[in-house]
Amino acid sequence: MTKICVIGLGYVGLPILLNLSNKYKCIGYDISLNRIESLKKGRDIFKEFSKKELLKKSILYSNNLNHAANCNIFIITVPTPIYQNKKPDLSHLKDVCEKLSKKIKKKDILIFESTVYPGITNNFCIPIIEKFSKLKEGRDFFVGYSPERVNPGDKKHNLKKINKIFAYPYKFRKKEILSIYKLICKKLIITENIKEAEAAKVIENIQRDVNIGLINEIYLVCKKLNLDFKEVINLASTKWNFLKFKPGLVGGHCLPVDPYYFAHISKINNYKTKITLAGRQTNDFMEKNILIEIKNILKVHDKKNNKKVLLCGLSYKENVSDHRNSLALNIFNKLKKIKKNISGYDPMINDNLSNKLNLIISEKEFSNFDIYITLIRHNIIKKKINKLSKNKLIFNILSNI
Amino acid sequence: MTKICVIGLGYVGLPILLNLSNKYKCIGYDISLNRIESLKKGRDIFKEFSKKELLKKSILYSNNLNHAANCNIFIITVPTPIYQNKKPDLSHLKDVCEKLSKKIKKKDILIFESTVYPGITNNFCIPIIEKFSKLKEGRDFFVGYSPERVNPGDKKHNLKKINKIFAYPYKFRKKEILSIYKLICKKLIITENIKEAEAAKVIENIQRDVNIGLINEIYLVCKKLNLDFKEVINLASTKWNFLKFKPGLVGGHCLPVDPYYFAHISKINNYKTKITLAGRQTNDFMEKNILIEIKNILKVHDKKNNKKVLLCGLSYKENVSDHRNSLALNIFNKLKKIKKNISGYDPMINDNLSNKLNLIISEKEFSNFDIYITLIRHNIIKKKINKLSKNKLIFNILSNI
Repeated sequence: MTKICVIGLGYVGLPILLNLSNKYKCIGYDISLNRIESLKKGRDIFKEFSKKELLKKSILYSNNLNHAANCNIFIITVPTPIYQNKKPDLSHLKDVCEKLSKKIKKKDILIFESTVYPGITNNFCIPIIEKFSKLKEGRDFFVGYSPERVNPGDKKHNLKKINKIFAYPYKFRKKEILSIYKLICKKLIITENIKEAEAAKVIENIQRDVNIGLINEIYLVCKKLNLDFKEVINLASTKWNFLKFKPGLVGGHCLPVDPYYFAHISKINNYKTKITLAGRQTNDFMEKNILIEIKNILKVHDKKNNKKVLLCGLSYKENVSDHRNSLALNIFNKLKKIKKNISGYDPMINDNLSNKLNLIISEKEFSNFDIYITLIRHNIIKKKINKLSKNKLIFNILSNI
Repeated sequence: MTKICVIGLGYVGLPILLNLSNKYKCIGYDISLNRIESLKKGRDIFKEFSKKELLKKSILYSNNLNHAANCNIFIITVPTPIYQNKKPDLSHLKDVCEKLSKKIKKKDILIFESTVYPGITNNFCIPIIEKFSKLKEGRDFFVGYSPERVNPGDKKHNLKKINKIFAYPYKFRKKEILSIYKLICKKLIITENIKEAEAAKVIENIQRDVNIGLINEIYLVCKKLNLDFKEVINLASTKWNFLKFKPGLVGGHCLPVDPYYFAHISKINNYKTKITLAGRQTNDFMEKNILIEIKNILKVHDKKNNKKVLLCGLSYKENVSDHRNSLALNIFNKLKKIKKNISGYDPMINDNLSNKLNLIISEKEFSNFDIYITLIRHNIIKKKINKLSKNKLIFNILSNI
């Protein structure tokens, strides 16, 4: 009988688990006891899923892989971040491979979902598992790769509505694993080549990062030249092939990370990339730049430094509750150090977290400021700002093109 | 009576002239006597226009601006290249402004079309004209800017089918000049801000150059990692927002030039761009890289260096006859130095020019080679290659994704 273990219950693993549990018995494993405890109570801190969805009988949440002893399909969605020095941090992958090597049995299938550089599945993950399990991949157990394409906050392109790449070089249980994966997306794009699937995923994010970087650069140059950025983009957009990317604070776990993976493997293979990382510096620099922009606003409109200022929208991306790796939150924390009367607000972030982050939460308090500065413009923030009385000063940072 | 002078009869000026001459008396001015002589004979070396179109009675071709003495509208489409050191070469603009300053009269209108950086029309061109003419812009004569959006070889987006930005800050003769410009495009996008129009144009090309650069970089890394580039791109393209740019040899007069204009004005304004020029080095490097790729092909398939090799497609871009600034042609010239039995072929380039460039032209000769290498794949080349007998070795350089 098919029994599935999903390893890593973040924004990638959790929706996969919930989809598959409609048909299969599943174990949801996460290394974080906190995460497991709250999921067991039906609570998703990122507010994406309801209590009812989370508390299905077909799911067992656990931070102990022993509970997955009788699973025969493992889906691995652990994070692949970078170290401070920007080198790929494969420690989570390594850790999970070591743990799995002690659990897996003959005929098991492992599908990796984490974004990596081409070669990691075959040259890094499989050797670790083989070494400790004494099993041989392709004979005893079988590995595939299906890169996650979750776009947090984007309801138009959620898991069930997208094409998903699925790389699996074997015939063994192929029909079965394909029918399982078909449950979690609109269409499967099937290939046998894991490395090409790994490359495909990472270049998607590089392309976005570079393009947002370029539009941020154009935004900064327009400021320097006293040009109306929004007007420039609107004019350029009348060309049939101009791509209307938005400038912004690029945070999160993908764009600020993935380019370094590709650059790393290129360098190892004697090719120093010149464009892959071109967006990184400028996109990171936007934090400092927006900080300056806000300081300049306050210099003009809060001369006596006695106005009450509210910074709105602090998660890492529009319509997303995740505050980790958020440049907007960094900006808030830096502003707090130089101005007392400043508060932060993000209705997407749950109340507990908001309390921890020292953000205001009450509706009453919200209408009680003199100056409102919007950073990450969630739909709900736009609505609330529009309803404010007319005597409030409102500044929308980064043109909303 | 409206009489129009189009200054510069290259791939930008000539189609404007021909369109306007359907309704107005026009002077077509070019600094090159050769160009004027051949246009007078109804010959367009780039084979875009027929003899009948060129020899309209409403057009007077001249390389003497005195013939434009009674014109009252001037459209300037001179080239804006870069110097060897990559700095903007404004000498053609300077020259034409000086010449015009001695010809223009009160109430004349001048529209610039050349791609520039924001500020050139107002801060460079107008001061030159005012200085020598003793006339005041905005009072005596009036200047607008309408950036050219010609995409050579692209029949889907020719002048009559595209939106065209038109920046003109005055009311004087505005209706008239708009009605004239409406003759040469599908829709006018009207603005009063010349600088924003200048910026809009130059960033369109930068965006293309950076994106092609990135796809070229991915192509090169895939080669290094032994990945099937075409397959990687096809997989990535199954994501809803992946942009399928083609790798290629970026030549011509726009992409290799325009980024330097924007970077230049940014630097002057204390912002050193980090992404604008990111594509340049890689795109230029493709010449060397493709040269190596071809040498490697010949090492394997022409071991004794006795095969007859034909390099096909040498203009700067698909379906374009213009060979100037063509990286493919550079590659051909470099290969000739190391291999005797190599010939070049481009059916888009006219026979006279082909002779000068030492390319083969006869159909008979074309089928007489052992190895065919296609570089710039014009539609006509694809057809001809498909018709070759099956014993020929054919290599299509740069995946045709």
